[in-house]
Amino acid sequence: MEFARRTEGRVATKSTAIDLGPLGDSVGYLVRRAQVTIFQSFFELFEAAEVRPAQYSVLTVIQHNPGLSQTRIADALGIKKTNLVAMIDELETRGLARRLVTERDRRSHALFLTPKGNAFVVRLHRLDAALNRRLGQALAGSDHRQFCEALRRIAAA
Amino acid sequence: MEFARRTEGRVATKSTAIDLGPLGDSVGYLVRRAQVTIFQSFFELFEAAEVRPAQYSVLTVIQHNPGLSQTRIADALGIKKTNLVAMIDELETRGLARRLVTERDRRSHALFLTPKGNAFVVRLHRLDAALNRRLGQALAGSDHRQFCEALRRIAAA
Repeated sequence: MEFARRTEGRVATKSTAIDLGPLGDSVGYLVRRAQVTIFQSFFELFEAAEVRPAQYSVLTVIQHNPGLSQTRIADALGIKKTNLVAMIDELETRGLARRLVTERDRRSHALFLTPKGNAFVVRLHRLDAALNRRLGQALAGSDHRQFCEALRRIAAA
Repeated sequence: MEFARRTEGRVATKSTAIDLGPLGDSVGYLVRRAQVTIFQSFFELFEAAEVRPAQYSVLTVIQHNPGLSQTRIADALGIKKTNLVAMIDELETRGLARRLVTERDRRSHALFLTPKGNAFVVRLHRLDAALNRRLGQALAGSDHRQFCEALRRIAAA
């Protein structure tokens, strides 16, 4: 009984609202909290496939733009070139992607998915679509398209 | 002349649009890109003050809720308790925050800002307000309040 009462007291204290001050309306803070939640869902969903968000982005862009250089992929996704090179190393080791030396510029590498990589990405897109449906439910009531457009404008600012 | 022509060619190739595939409309991808841009602005703006985003959030919450425990701050901000403890250590060393043992529970610490910490946070809020004004400009045309509400719903999903 004593334990139950103490637990209740602790719960009551815990539920007292915390004042976030200027954070409560800070776009930066809110975008960060949304991103952390989304990444947690992503990690759970993609855990079995052993894929991190940045790897998923890279695989998707290679699939849709076969032959692209590492520099252009890094630019398009806002990833540091050195991080991308390490990532491509890993994707090559796993047999998912392949670097080919281009005829025009022997210092540059053209990136392609292997057939295994292609089948893998198709499977990942199905998982991602499920995640997007869940996020879409959280967005219910607000204008999905306007929300995405606002995010694009912030990213480009 | 040859150099100029070559440069132009390279620029033209670079500007060819890259197909992002399903990423282009992925809420997760767009939230991440927006967050990375915001953090870059934050790092530039707060560099001189040597404050990281999570430290800024912690300082703000301590200021608005003096006496709060480490556990509740970690819960409110979605920070791991061990990371928060290390962060408070650093803030104490810098003379910005202080842990006091509470009368009711000697294992728990109540957190407070020092007068120096308080003056410091007031200065940081001015920097953050400037960043929020810039982000507000990027959001022009869309409903700011609805945008923040959508982010809150995703974070809580």
